[in-house]
Amino acid sequence: MVLFRRVLGDALRAQRMRRGMTLRELSADARVSLGYISEIERGQKEASSELLASLCSALDVRLSQVLSEVSAAVAVEEAATLPTPITATPIPATPIPVRSAASDDVVASAA
Amino acid sequence: MVLFRRVLGDALRAQRMRRGMTLRELSADARVSLGYISEIERGQKEASSELLASLCSALDVRLSQVLSEVSAAVAVEEAATLPTPITATPIPATPIPVRSAASDDVVASAA
Repeated sequence: MVLFRRVLGDALRAQRMRRGMTLRELSADARVSLGYISEIERGQKEASSELLASLCSALDVRLSQVLSEVSAAVAVEEAATLPTPITATPIPATPIPVRSAASDDVVASAA
Repeated sequence: MVLFRRVLGDALRAQRMRRGMTLRELSADARVSLGYISEIERGQKEASSELLASLCSALDVRLSQVLSEVSAAVAVEEAATLPTPITATPIPATPIPVRSAASDDVVASAA
């Protein structure tokens, strides 16, 4: 399961890093405790919508931009976790003994 | 201030409507109380990341898709709330008395 708060935390930290801001500076600008921001960046706490707006404002980034980055990162994780469709029959580990055409058909449909 | 939970609520409701699901059906599928889903759709409660994942799963929609829709809707609201840059001089409410070309220039630059 892809957790929104973890990917959001990564995106917020990346935004802060891009601006060369420390947690202390962001904490002062956003008026949010340093420890709380740290927990959000590590995906350990959910950010309320008001807090998210404050962080975006202090980071001088639009909420839509952050959400767009989160959506893209979530899509990558979703693609990685989706089951791969089987498009070819697997290669058998042991040689199949020679059989008649009829019994081969039965083996094929049971596989 | 654009609140994430309100736009998210709208997006989740839109997804439910597209599938013709009732709140009761979604509640049963996602194993979340009907009242709680209703509050989330109305933007009155923050959805935890686990709950958001459950709702997306029950709605058979990817989280990345929902976040992409939310991002787009937030961008529209952000554009509407941004201050409009002044690109033309405002139309005066009262007729401007006839002046010389030189004094007209002064009025235009002061506007």
